[in-house]
Amino acid sequence: MNKEVALVAYAHEKYGVLSESTEDLIGKMVRGALENVDKGMDAEEVDWVITSCVDNQFSEQHQTGTVAWEALGNPGAKAFRVEAACCSGSMAVYLARNLIRSGLARNVLVVGFEKMSAVSTLVATGVLMRGSSPEERRVGITQPASYSIMIQQYMSKYGATEEDFALVSVKNHENAMRNPWAHFHKKITVEDVLNSRLIAPPIRLFHCCPISDGAAAVIVSGDPKKYTDTPVYIAGMGMAHDAFSSFRRSDPAFLLASKLAADEAYKEAGITPKDIRVAEVHDAFTPVEPMCYEALGIAGRGEGYKLVREGVVMFDGAIPVNVSGGLKAKGHPVGATGIGMMVEIYLQLRGEAGERQVPDVEVGVVENHGGTGSVSLVTVLRR
Amino acid sequence: MNKEVALVAYAHEKYGVLSESTEDLIGKMVRGALENVDKGMDAEEVDWVITSCVDNQFSEQHQTGTVAWEALGNPGAKAFRVEAACCSGSMAVYLARNLIRSGLARNVLVVGFEKMSAVSTLVATGVLMRGSSPEERRVGITQPASYSIMIQQYMSKYGATEEDFALVSVKNHENAMRNPWAHFHKKITVEDVLNSRLIAPPIRLFHCCPISDGAAAVIVSGDPKKYTDTPVYIAGMGMAHDAFSSFRRSDPAFLLASKLAADEAYKEAGITPKDIRVAEVHDAFTPVEPMCYEALGIAGRGEGYKLVREGVVMFDGAIPVNVSGGLKAKGHPVGATGIGMMVEIYLQLRGEAGERQVPDVEVGVVENHGGTGSVSLVTVLRR
Repeated sequence: MNKEVALVAYAHEKYGVLSESTEDLIGKMVRGALENVDKGMDAEEVDWVITSCVDNQFSEQHQTGTVAWEALGNPGAKAFRVEAACCSGSMAVYLARNLIRSGLARNVLVVGFEKMSAVSTLVATGVLMRGSSPEERRVGITQPASYSIMIQQYMSKYGATEEDFALVSVKNHENAMRNPWAHFHKKITVEDVLNSRLIAPPIRLFHCCPISDGAAAVIVSGDPKKYTDTPVYIAGMGMAHDAFSSFRRSDPAFLLASKLAADEAYKEAGITPKDIRVAEVHDAFTPVEPMCYEALGIAGRGEGYKLVREGVVMFDGAIPVNVSGGLKAKGHPVGATGIGMMVEIYLQLRGEAGERQVPDVEVGVVENHGGTGSVSLVTVLRR
Repeated sequence: MNKEVALVAYAHEKYGVLSESTEDLIGKMVRGALENVDKGMDAEEVDWVITSCVDNQFSEQHQTGTVAWEALGNPGAKAFRVEAACCSGSMAVYLARNLIRSGLARNVLVVGFEKMSAVSTLVATGVLMRGSSPEERRVGITQPASYSIMIQQYMSKYGATEEDFALVSVKNHENAMRNPWAHFHKKITVEDVLNSRLIAPPIRLFHCCPISDGAAAVIVSGDPKKYTDTPVYIAGMGMAHDAFSSFRRSDPAFLLASKLAADEAYKEAGITPKDIRVAEVHDAFTPVEPMCYEALGIAGRGEGYKLVREGVVMFDGAIPVNVSGGLKAKGHPVGATGIGMMVEIYLQLRGEAGERQVPDVEVGVVENHGGTGSVSLVTVLRR
């Protein structure tokens, strides 16, 4: 299981409101990734295609695997779709790596997407309720409400304030200004956040990720040097679960699944949190971002919010987090999200992140959780 | 890649209209399969759970992986969902075997389900349209219409008649009488079929599978003898694709994807079509069943319908096909279908199929295609 597997190319669509159909987006990503391989790659060298999306009511397509297969144009390739809630994209990369390691594939093209603006906001809200546990749904605990339970406990245990959480939103909006793919290009202030509409205390509108369309793709290779001189190695991946309903977890103020996933990924990669220079984490609601720092071990338990206060996670800090703008400001087209996060770290490691390039990146991490933390994947990428 | 992987247990729910929620069905299948292991298996011995379902609008649940993980009760297990249209169930078993072969799992529990009666027939029809290609949809070619293009070409090329196809429906309804899990327990006649409502010529209502709820599970093991003295080995699996729109295929009157998948599966299993004693094939619309025989090589090209006329595929014939009642009469709860087909062959190989037991079964095959043949998996099971 020590075969070195790497990302060797990507494609990325701007997140926002897109006019293309699901099928057109898939085609664009598949062809885009293939054309983006430094030393070239023929369609015949791609043995599998994995698609990642969360709800067919958004995509209006059951056969995204076949759509991607047709776009690829290699009759001998195989294709399927994977879903693991908000971490579907990371799950697809996990399985791609395993297909390569087990000898079933040389290269796997992974494409994630979601067309969330295809339905009305009312319908989208109903669709997103499918991400809640039956017992939460029964008593009206939506996903923001499930997060609010976690965040309220976090505040009362550790003393984090509403201002701390507002600062996370401000940071991510500021970062998104440097990302042409971001849904929002709009600076906001702490006051803007604190004055925005209350959703589920303490979560306000400006803590919430938008409903975005988007797509992203990566090519995962078992023979990376054949395709590029600067592959981005998947040094470690981990995955874990926790109780579906946030109130049933041993500690709702801690992302245990992400911590276990990180432990597994770090062990495989042979790194410690001290090695991390840059990270993309799952700020679907920005007050959860400090909990992600703690799960990743870049902050002590109950001390994540201090990293925001102290500037450690700011763009010019020691460990910039969500330089892409994060789910909050870059957007969260669910099936694309995990893959988009990997594309960001890929660019950072190759020194191709343009205006938002962080200097001297050797190791970057993606924390991509789903279901308010009931499932999580953590990926360590390195040059 | 020669590690012997086998099915060592199953669970199966009656197909039809079920009152349980998706979550309850998943729980019942997960616990049922685990309790069904001959020599016992602890939850801690199951490293992965894979769920298979096709549309979240049926299941009303995005996190079926987490639901199955909670039902299992092994905190260290990992779970995700896979979808490959109507062959999602087979795809899940394919990936389960690969997780085992690659050393990531000892045992994988695979659970498939669909709650199709959860929405109105009108809504279900809209949901199922997501299985068509954009260009088919644009001109109103529904899935039955896409199949009708294939079947009309087949009739004009080879001389099959409407009576031949009616006989397939009659056979499958007759077989379902012996299957307590079947949706329909109702004998029909050739006249019933020919007098039933026209859907897409020559397809009539009594050629069409019903809209069913259902669930099924199998446990896939890399150490089968530890769990049972009579494992059912996955001797070979193959997968292939063809053009999404049936009218774009090189030969719409032939299931090329299923033929390529069968070739791959037979090669791995070291068998020829002559070794097959029993088969479950994807008769979503019964006129396509003879084309499945041809793809599997148990009939020559253009001669599949003769096997029905001659009785070869009848319950007491040389190669009984769809002794379960098939998708037509057992039912087609999409995400469960492929797994339910494997359960049927599992029982046949273990001599546990009760009233519908076929004698002397050494090798059985499952042909599970999706999207009118744009994707297909074929599985060879043996004692």
